[in-house]
Amino acid sequence: MPTINSSVLRGLCVIIDPEVAGGRSEEEIARLAIEGGATLIQLRDKRREKGLQLEVAERLMRVCVGPNLRLIINDHVDLALAARADGVHLGQKDLPVAIVRRRLMRQGIIGCSTNNVEEALRAQADGADYVSVGRLFPTTSKENIRPATLETVRAVKAAVSIPVAAIGGITEENIDAVLAAGADMVCVIAAVVAAADPREAARRLSARIAAHQAGR
Amino acid sequence: MPTINSSVLRGLCVIIDPEVAGGRSEEEIARLAIEGGATLIQLRDKRREKGLQLEVAERLMRVCVGPNLRLIINDHVDLALAARADGVHLGQKDLPVAIVRRRLMRQGIIGCSTNNVEEALRAQADGADYVSVGRLFPTTSKENIRPATLETVRAVKAAVSIPVAAIGGITEENIDAVLAAGADMVCVIAAVVAAADPREAARRLSARIAAHQAGR
Repeated sequence: MPTINSSVLRGLCVIIDPEVAGGRSEEEIARLAIEGGATLIQLRDKRREKGLQLEVAERLMRVCVGPNLRLIINDHVDLALAARADGVHLGQKDLPVAIVRRRLMRQGIIGCSTNNVEEALRAQADGADYVSVGRLFPTTSKENIRPATLETVRAVKAAVSIPVAAIGGITEENIDAVLAAGADMVCVIAAVVAAADPREAARRLSARIAAHQAGR
Repeated sequence: MPTINSSVLRGLCVIIDPEVAGGRSEEEIARLAIEGGATLIQLRDKRREKGLQLEVAERLMRVCVGPNLRLIINDHVDLALAARADGVHLGQKDLPVAIVRRRLMRQGIIGCSTNNVEEALRAQADGADYVSVGRLFPTTSKENIRPATLETVRAVKAAVSIPVAAIGGITEENIDAVLAAGADMVCVIAAVVAAADPREAARRLSARIAAHQAGR
């Protein structure tokens, strides 16, 4: 298992999807999210050519500098390796965690989308550094269509020893319930990326996470 | 530069695109193409989830066994590494050859799509094992939209020392002209994959390549 500053995986993860960015550059959104307290930035681009994505990832790498801050790439392990990003996030239909850990990325962060305890336990056994659980609430971004509940978060948290991330429609209104269910990390897309003030949106969410962790 | 049986890159390359396969499995087409004399099989899948593509690539790896036969993957270097395929083919908008050679694939075959002498020289300098030149003729598969001519093949062949592949609408009718222009390898998609008898289609094309090379 790679050495990871574990606080990176116990904070706010902002997923930057250019389709949600509303014209702002990826690095501008990342910069604002980081100023607001995000510890993990994930680039998710399902559409554009990988040469272009590499340029974006390299620009993000210059923004994601700091001891308590990492950049990971959704799905494209080759892009992560090419950009020297800190890791990847894999869905259940992407390359399998076990093979990526063994053959492509011995050192980097590997996160894995899960929807139930069985998938979470397998991801942990296969070498994932964290699992995400979702989609918890209705969301404007169309990915992660399988629903999960706060009960799923509770059950996964009880089952695995690696950090558990919650994802899907998390906002200021419901984040406390998500944290109370046991989420170590909270992943958001639109709540920060599409916010009028991404820095302030990230700051408010990060503050709730910090408050919850201080009270544990 | 990796050691590659150079005859692999001086024969018939069959690009298997599931969108053109007309319901036949990728490994069935590969098996027939190989029986017909193909030396390089390329899996090109721009659509499906990478987990599924990995299963396809692993099945193809079991078919592509032999000293004078290789399997490469279009675009997805991570898939190639995960499947332990023999290499990749990169377009001008995919990850750059230089970065893939340096950071991801020191040993495998790297091919690169080019459209002119400048791109071909850069691909060679960056570590490509072969360059393809196209699209030469109108084609039913919609990729490779930039046109090139037999004169481009001639100019690229004169400029580079690595094998030159020709691609785009190559058939029994025009393959002799393509070979006469200096192509070392001929890449086809529909001419074999969509043929009523892929084995026979590959056999006829391979025979023309062999005849040309014997007469050089």
